[in-house]
Amino acid sequence: MKSGDLPSGIDRRALVSALTLLPAFPQLFLPATVRAQTVAGAPLASWNEGSAKQAILNFVRVATDRTNPQFVPPEQRIATFDQDGTLWVEHPIYSQVVYCLDRVPAVVGRKPELKTVEPFKTVLSGDREAMARLSRHDLETILAATLTGMPVEEFEAEVKTWLETAKHPRWKRPYTDLVYQPMLDVLQYLRDNAFRTYIVTGGGQDFVRVYSQRVYGIPLEQVVGTIGGTKFGYDKDGKPFLTKEPKLLLNNDSAGKPEGIHLMIGRRPRAAFGNSVGDREMLEYTGAGDGARLMMLVLHDDAQREYAYGPARGLPESKIGTFTPALDDEAKRNGWTVISMKNDWKRIFPFDS
Amino acid sequence: MKSGDLPSGIDRRALVSALTLLPAFPQLFLPATVRAQTVAGAPLASWNEGSAKQAILNFVRVATDRTNPQFVPPEQRIATFDQDGTLWVEHPIYSQVVYCLDRVPAVVGRKPELKTVEPFKTVLSGDREAMARLSRHDLETILAATLTGMPVEEFEAEVKTWLETAKHPRWKRPYTDLVYQPMLDVLQYLRDNAFRTYIVTGGGQDFVRVYSQRVYGIPLEQVVGTIGGTKFGYDKDGKPFLTKEPKLLLNNDSAGKPEGIHLMIGRRPRAAFGNSVGDREMLEYTGAGDGARLMMLVLHDDAQREYAYGPARGLPESKIGTFTPALDDEAKRNGWTVISMKNDWKRIFPFDS
Repeated sequence: MKSGDLPSGIDRRALVSALTLLPAFPQLFLPATVRAQTVAGAPLASWNEGSAKQAILNFVRVATDRTNPQFVPPEQRIATFDQDGTLWVEHPIYSQVVYCLDRVPAVVGRKPELKTVEPFKTVLSGDREAMARLSRHDLETILAATLTGMPVEEFEAEVKTWLETAKHPRWKRPYTDLVYQPMLDVLQYLRDNAFRTYIVTGGGQDFVRVYSQRVYGIPLEQVVGTIGGTKFGYDKDGKPFLTKEPKLLLNNDSAGKPEGIHLMIGRRPRAAFGNSVGDREMLEYTGAGDGARLMMLVLHDDAQREYAYGPARGLPESKIGTFTPALDDEAKRNGWTVISMKNDWKRIFPFDS
Repeated sequence: MKSGDLPSGIDRRALVSALTLLPAFPQLFLPATVRAQTVAGAPLASWNEGSAKQAILNFVRVATDRTNPQFVPPEQRIATFDQDGTLWVEHPIYSQVVYCLDRVPAVVGRKPELKTVEPFKTVLSGDREAMARLSRHDLETILAATLTGMPVEEFEAEVKTWLETAKHPRWKRPYTDLVYQPMLDVLQYLRDNAFRTYIVTGGGQDFVRVYSQRVYGIPLEQVVGTIGGTKFGYDKDGKPFLTKEPKLLLNNDSAGKPEGIHLMIGRRPRAAFGNSVGDREMLEYTGAGDGARLMMLVLHDDAQREYAYGPARGLPESKIGTFTPALDDEAKRNGWTVISMKNDWKRIFPFDS
């Protein structure tokens, strides 16, 4: 490259020295088109050819083409992803709920009077059938006891420790291994084209922030989740700290998702990915704007490689991650693309051969 | 520049084509060190030499020096700025409150029954003395009536229109002209060194987001303010939209500032700038972490070029933007730097010669 190729005002030596910094913070510094072209092979390598893969490629082509009337200016390139069932496995039970149940002995250890009190007693018994019968209110009691009341740094450390040791009952691997490789491909492909990728989850914002960078390459600032309040105070040495409070500021599910997006991002997404009725409003909100748009829903129709649940399209009913016939109808009506795990995904997990 | 100077794996043609995109979105694409070295002249040009300017230069030098034990990794480079009285003029009254008062006729136009009801009646009268006597509760009624109840897009359009026409009574200029050039210098200097700059204001998050990019170069995602709820719903054609609700989720002032920072950013800032007792907790929280830290307070001691108010250091008392002797003492105790507008700032506004 000759120096004459550089736009005026950019110092050559400074540019070279800046580029040597790239490995430390690649996402911020490296122009999108460079990354796209240096990634080995074609994008979306874990996807089979088909209408789902094509929908993603078409969207990005249109959104990044300055000559297209549907071109999306870089500052508006926001893509939002539900987590449970969209980016990683949500069956047989949400990972965060497993975390809360696993934390009960520690909570009771600190407050022994809870040992004989429900629902803690049932959780301590280890009786899985009894635990499955716990009411929503019981579950909320457990969530409040295990997710709040401690300094935020203490909570983060506890989650980190748990993630290193807890294993999924089916695959006997850490929960953070059970992410879908095709969705990691989509995240990377969108980022390569200057999209900022956000998680928009019903899970706890502070919980998901602990691992979002490591697992998804999404910085913690770009996690929108269910938000609990914190309370500022001082420890005995006068040092300020924040305590997690049992106060719900935003339930980031269903109608709460567009509300959370407005609160945390302040822009309407251009692309949104979900897998259940809890993602319906996010996809509707995303689709209601002008210009290039992409709305996609993951259908879990692969009992062999993952799970099969609906109840759309004759799949078994599910308490977790419900994909109803009504959602399927709305997808058809609105031009949302349904992703068949079985047919559209070449492999499911990064550890699959 | 010879191609051999480029790190391997970066395609030369792609790099050139990427660089041509820069003017559209410079902050995201251009490596920090390039910008720092292409900015004409030395940083902080609007600052006089002195301990305040030196504190900023020292902080950045240490934070960006990989060989220094206080080095700050790029992902942790977060700097937070109060707005009113720190980035722009807050006297004689917060701009957003002026906006709300100015909106009262439109609100009454839509709901004529309010015409004879207090506090609307007093505001419509235009009697400034009577308006100055309005209670806090009256003011909250006016804020709720003018900041909530409409779709978010309608609110944004109203604020935009107002900003184009409203003028500050002293300078007869738009409020957005009344930003402090030395603080714009600091924002730019920090961004040139890979800091992400955030506004952390007691003002409304949605209000400040309307102009943050244009006025401060801060993208709307990086505005942390007082947060009201929104409500997802559908219009008569079934199109989804969000309505601003009269529901306070977070009062982003005093102890609310570190709480808002945790909610919106999720990281403890490395630098924080304020000017009043409402910024105390943000500076304490920022200062309580390890490594390089910078905490600064703007003292308004320049009646001639701006305003003089305290009541610290014998300056007149002020209802808005109180800088108390206790805050001054805490600054001294904690090593926070107090910025004297009169002595440390070469000029105040961008339009000053």
